[in-house]
Amino acid sequence: MNKNSTNIMALAPKSSNKRDTVCIFGTGDFGRALGHKLIQSGYPVVFGSRSTQTSSLIPKGAEVMSHAEAAQKAAIIFIAIQRQHYNFLTSLAEILHGKVLVDISNNSKINEYPESNAEYLAQLVPGAKVVKAFNTVSAWALQSGTLDASRQVFVCGDDMAAKQLVMDIVRILGLTPLDQGSLLAAREIENYPLQLFPMWKFPILLSLGLTTFFFFYCLALDVIYPYVYQKKDFSFFIAITIPNKICPILALILLGLVYLPGVLAAIIQLYRGTKYRRFPDWLDKWMLCRKQLGLVALAFASVHVLYTLVIPIRSYVRWRTSDRIISQIQNNRTEPLNTTNAWLSDSYLALGILGFFLFVLLGITSLPSVSNNVNWREFRFVQSKLGYLTLILCTAHTLVYGGKWFLVPSSYKWYLPPVYMFSLIIPCSVLVVKFVLIFPCLDKPLTRIRQGWERNPQYSEQSNYIINKSAV
Amino acid sequence: MNKNSTNIMALAPKSSNKRDTVCIFGTGDFGRALGHKLIQSGYPVVFGSRSTQTSSLIPKGAEVMSHAEAAQKAAIIFIAIQRQHYNFLTSLAEILHGKVLVDISNNSKINEYPESNAEYLAQLVPGAKVVKAFNTVSAWALQSGTLDASRQVFVCGDDMAAKQLVMDIVRILGLTPLDQGSLLAAREIENYPLQLFPMWKFPILLSLGLTTFFFFYCLALDVIYPYVYQKKDFSFFIAITIPNKICPILALILLGLVYLPGVLAAIIQLYRGTKYRRFPDWLDKWMLCRKQLGLVALAFASVHVLYTLVIPIRSYVRWRTSDRIISQIQNNRTEPLNTTNAWLSDSYLALGILGFFLFVLLGITSLPSVSNNVNWREFRFVQSKLGYLTLILCTAHTLVYGGKWFLVPSSYKWYLPPVYMFSLIIPCSVLVVKFVLIFPCLDKPLTRIRQGWERNPQYSEQSNYIINKSAV
Amino acid sequence: MNKNSTNIMALAPKSSNKRDTVCIFGTGDFGRALGHKLIQSGYPVVFGSRSTQTSSLIPKGAEVMSHAEAAQKAAIIFIAIQRQHYNFLTSLAEILHGKVLVDISNNSKINEYPESNAEYLAQLVPGAKVVKAFNTVSAWALQSGTLDASRQVFVCGDDMAAKQLVMDIVRILGLTPLDQGSLLAAREIENYPLQLFPMWKFPILLSLGLTTFFFFYCLALDVIYPYVYQKKDFSFFIAITIPNKICPILALILLGLVYLPGVLAAIIQLYRGTKYRRFPDWLDKWMLCRKQLGLVALAFASVHVLYTLVIPIRSYVRWRTSDRIISQIQNNRTEPLNTTNAWLSDSYLALGILGFFLFVLLGITSLPSVSNNVNWREFRFVQSKLGYLTLILCTAHTLVYGGKWFLVPSSYKWYLPPVYMFSLIIPCSVLVVKFVLIFPCLDKPLTRIRQGWERNPQYSEQSNYIINKSAV
Repeated sequence: MNKNSTNIMALAPKSSNKRDTVCIFGTGDFGRALGHKLIQSGYPVVFGSRSTQTSSLIPKGAEVMSHAEAAQKAAIIFIAIQRQHYNFLTSLAEILHGKVLVDISNNSKINEYPESNAEYLAQLVPGAKVVKAFNTVSAWALQSGTLDASRQVFVCGDDMAAKQLVMDIVRILGLTPLDQGSLLAAREIENYPLQLFPMWKFPILLSLGLTTFFFFYCLALDVIYPYVYQKKDFSFFIAITIPNKICPILALILLGLVYLPGVLAAIIQLYRGTKYRRFPDWLDKWMLCRKQLGLVALAFASVHVLYTLVIPIRSYVRWRTSDRIISQIQNNRTEPLNTTNAWLSDSYLALGILGFFLFVLLGITSLPSVSNNVNWREFRFVQSKLGYLTLILCTAHTLVYGGKWFLVPSSYKWYLPPVYMFSLIIPCSVLVVKFVLIFPCLDKPLTRIRQGWERNPQYSEQSNYIINKSAV
Repeated sequence: MNKNSTNIMALAPKSSNKRDTVCIFGTGDFGRALGHKLIQSGYPVVFGSRSTQTSSLIPKGAEVMSHAEAAQKAAIIFIAIQRQHYNFLTSLAEILHGKVLVDISNNSKINEYPESNAEYLAQLVPGAKVVKAFNTVSAWALQSGTLDASRQVFVCGDDMAAKQLVMDIVRILGLTPLDQGSLLAAREIENYPLQLFPMWKFPILLSLGLTTFFFFYCLALDVIYPYVYQKKDFSFFIAITIPNKICPILALILLGLVYLPGVLAAIIQLYRGTKYRRFPDWLDKWMLCRKQLGLVALAFASVHVLYTLVIPIRSYVRWRTSDRIISQIQNNRTEPLNTTNAWLSDSYLALGILGFFLFVLLGITSLPSVSNNVNWREFRFVQSKLGYLTLILCTAHTLVYGGKWFLVPSSYKWYLPPVYMFSLIIPCSVLVVKFVLIFPCLDKPLTRIRQGWERNPQYSEQSNYIINKSAV
Repeated sequence: MNKNSTNIMALAPKSSNKRDTVCIFGTGDFGRALGHKLIQSGYPVVFGSRSTQTSSLIPKGAEVMSHAEAAQKAAIIFIAIQRQHYNFLTSLAEILHGKVLVDISNNSKINEYPESNAEYLAQLVPGAKVVKAFNTVSAWALQSGTLDASRQVFVCGDDMAAKQLVMDIVRILGLTPLDQGSLLAAREIENYPLQLFPMWKFPILLSLGLTTFFFFYCLALDVIYPYVYQKKDFSFFIAITIPNKICPILALILLGLVYLPGVLAAIIQLYRGTKYRRFPDWLDKWMLCRKQLGLVALAFASVHVLYTLVIPIRSYVRWRTSDRIISQIQNNRTEPLNTTNAWLSDSYLALGILGFFLFVLLGITSLPSVSNNVNWREFRFVQSKLGYLTLILCTAHTLVYGGKWFLVPSSYKWYLPPVYMFSLIIPCSVLVVKFVLIFPCLDKPLTRIRQGWERNPQYSEQSNYIINKSAV
């Protein structure tokens, strides 16, 4: 058996011992860093520059020549120039014909120009194959090699072969290429590095708004009310007591908001009798940021736990404790153990602990490396079954905590309800509707709809296919 | 030097600007979602269907034709049909000859059929190259692009080239292909999405069983005993006091069970004088779920920590504190500081805190993204050295906590030992045996055995090579 | 359109249905494990060995023959032999000519030989293409398939095609190849598996040193001082009280040390007027271990939190509480609520809680899987903006905590300042300098320098290009 011959064939596409020359236009910060990294990985590099003097900043081993000369040396050219200076490339159109041009530029504002830089480049040099890539990597990260942040390089382009070529280079540099499709995606890719947690904006703004509202509500009832009617200065409640009321309320409301859109979607699907019609836009967006809503809720819950656990260390609480004991003694009155109170206190603590424990578990499974290691059935089991159990436990925790005050008139200062009651509205509604949806008379048609069945098939004729943009 | 010519060669296998047409049999939910995604990634898509009417649900840009016509257009055909309907494919055998058929089907039960769907398909169309893939991805995930759960696509097949082709498509769709070997692996791959945490079953069932046992044990001693003999109602102990006894006990027992199989394996290897004989099956399985055992133990330990930290907030504990102080005053008796008690109390708390801290550290290093970034020496240092230190600290925590009660007869209600004593049996045994194994007279031969040395080489002749199934 | 022909071309490089034969020299532990794994993945495997008797340990399906015969069967040969026995390979030089030799060996000590094993192999067999790979994978991991630790396989070599071939095999075995460049990198790759957290050495040694110093400082002031002057035995402070002073001090000092090098670097760049001159070595190293410093600081902060939360459970604290209440009653003296004290106590707790919460958030974003999913702007926002906020909160926490004691002479025992004051020096200095650097007169030139502007361009002529070794 002639094994060797097969092998030589397998090696054929890469039979030369050297990598192909790569050209970089521009000797700025990023161009040099990229050139340095390419040389390290075994690529011969030529720089195209206006001044062909070899500066000491140019990485060792690279040549500098005029743009035209450099372009002729290589089949792939990185354009490490700012968009404003692109227009000189039109004069090189002939030399650049058929070459792969890699647009690595970034803008300083989101949607700064009508078309993306890469599309603009493709218009300027129509004969070239333009690929967008590398704009998410910083020069500093390339230089230092400490790629703590993303190793992902988004790549897009209209020419498959050119894109493949660029993706191979990305891989050889130790980065992970992600094909984002045609050059139309360049706009999104150019906006990406300018984004600051776009999915987190809504949850964070919402919780800031709610925090402000509840803060002033609590301030009125807990600080201003006793000051006005009892002349007592409880201003120090601002540090711990009031935040420790706001945090659990927000945690519970946000957790409820995580499960509300799912319930709404089920109602809409049942009403429409089909899953092939798009949800309203607000519902779509809401569903996409459920993970972020849940994690913000978990953050509030964690702070609530810490605030609660330091209670016995607080100077005020220690004073109150000794004050009570002393007054009991002075009045010569000893209280027996109130078993009902012990039950209530212990059970709301236990419910809270178990709810928080499950909540942390949900948070851990939402870590990318963990969720990548479970299958769909497991992921949905955790996020749906365990998620609802968490919601039930946390709602019960709040109900038991406040239970005894519902009917006590003194807890309605200024005719306003105690603040924790607000937190119960959404979770209780979600749980009630979810409970109704479990009944077979509703669950069965819903399951069928979700498997593709349609009550009125004519609907689908009018509808458009559900197209969600691919997640970047 | 003619650079361009080299380059053209490098591009040759992909020289056309378009991807190859892909065919999908079946216009169901998954077929359409897959077609949509393929079109997004630049593949021309044709659907093979019984009815060739273009429905509005078919993704834009795709053609629908008869099965035979569609199959002729492409070299790769996704079979998005349920297994029950596979048999019509036999009539297309001639057209399908030499084509790559991708079986993406799933079953509704584990091991539903005698052979896997992919093998069944290969039997039906013997001339085709069957590849199993994509069954772990859900239609919804493909549609919405929010692949929160696994991006991993398990691929298997007997034809290397066909498998390679499918793996390339997987990569271009932004997913991660994992080669699982020949078509024999299809059974395991088809069972995979039906699994619900298979590795966690044993640890969770074990801890449920132990929890039940210890719950009734504690109920008898802590609630029923005082009710019977002292007419006191401590039923509220069920909420916190009893769980806070069960959790640390289970955490310690399970942590002991993590290190017990390693110790047993060492004894077996020392006794046999070789590492080339397979361990008994139960030991193999036990060793494979050590990570899960440890994480369940960590969960119990975390709940124990929370339960312990809320102690001073409990209504019962506050009542007890003030009751004690009041009775001290009424009896006009002041206790001086008991330094021994202070030492015992502080040191068991400190041991517990340090043990828990190391335990959490172990948990963090078992996160996939963390353990992927350490080398073997580091991984074993953390899991073995730090792991034993955790076990020692936690055992010492329990010993110091209970130390003073060992010899007090009143703690043996109904002649039964206090419940925490049960938790000490396994960890203490593990630590004693491990301590013995460290002695050079045992450690040296063990190290040599683990490096491949055999005391009685004839053994190995009879033994089979250790084959553990590759982890899915 | 003749689709099939295009397809056949696409398949060409892998047109045969079988993988190419792979040869392994050496039938030791690793050789057999590797052979087993290769056979599982569909490679025909031949072993080259001195004794050609097929042992029962050889994986089924593999052939054993003489080295010369085995080498002729394959284009790629794994050298699973120890370096000491390499010299016999010179006799096979002719047969090995043009073959790919994969050096998988490891040493037992860092830098054991003057040249790396792979380079030594390349010298012995100059006609072969030597590739270094697989040395970071353990035989046990290959055998059992439970690759809990790293799946990363570092690959280096001078021949691109040979390296590509080896990287393909790595991928097919389900591992992740990482190209580390030319064979010069072999030394670093061989040292890698012998390393034990090299980046953690400095932070851990530093914190051990500081811990020792502060321990004896606290011991003197808190245990020996009261023993000498008041004859009180507070030796039990060693368990919790003193560690709970050391932990927050170390956490704050180390957190300050995370941000100090960034401030120093800014000063150096401003002074030099360019970013193109290398930082002093100590600063470079310091900047590279900031993440580790921060995580060690987080560990100390977490232990501090646990130590603080158990305070009310401590026997000593409970005794002190009741002692105070009793003495209040006996002296018939009731204290009114001290609002200033309540404010101070509540605000230092609140500051600590918020600081710790942000600190944990920083820790979570430094998990590899999380930091891989954010872009640079987001990563820097978290690590810089949120990081400084954490530092401010934690410093404020310490300032408020100790505020009232600054001017009280009794807190200066033996004329020594209270220990927490030491912790404030570094964080306060960092915050003051950072505050100064924000002023536009300094911030503007710094920003320009970091974008590549130089005050005295002649500097750059003398300087060398900043070359940082790529992170392994």
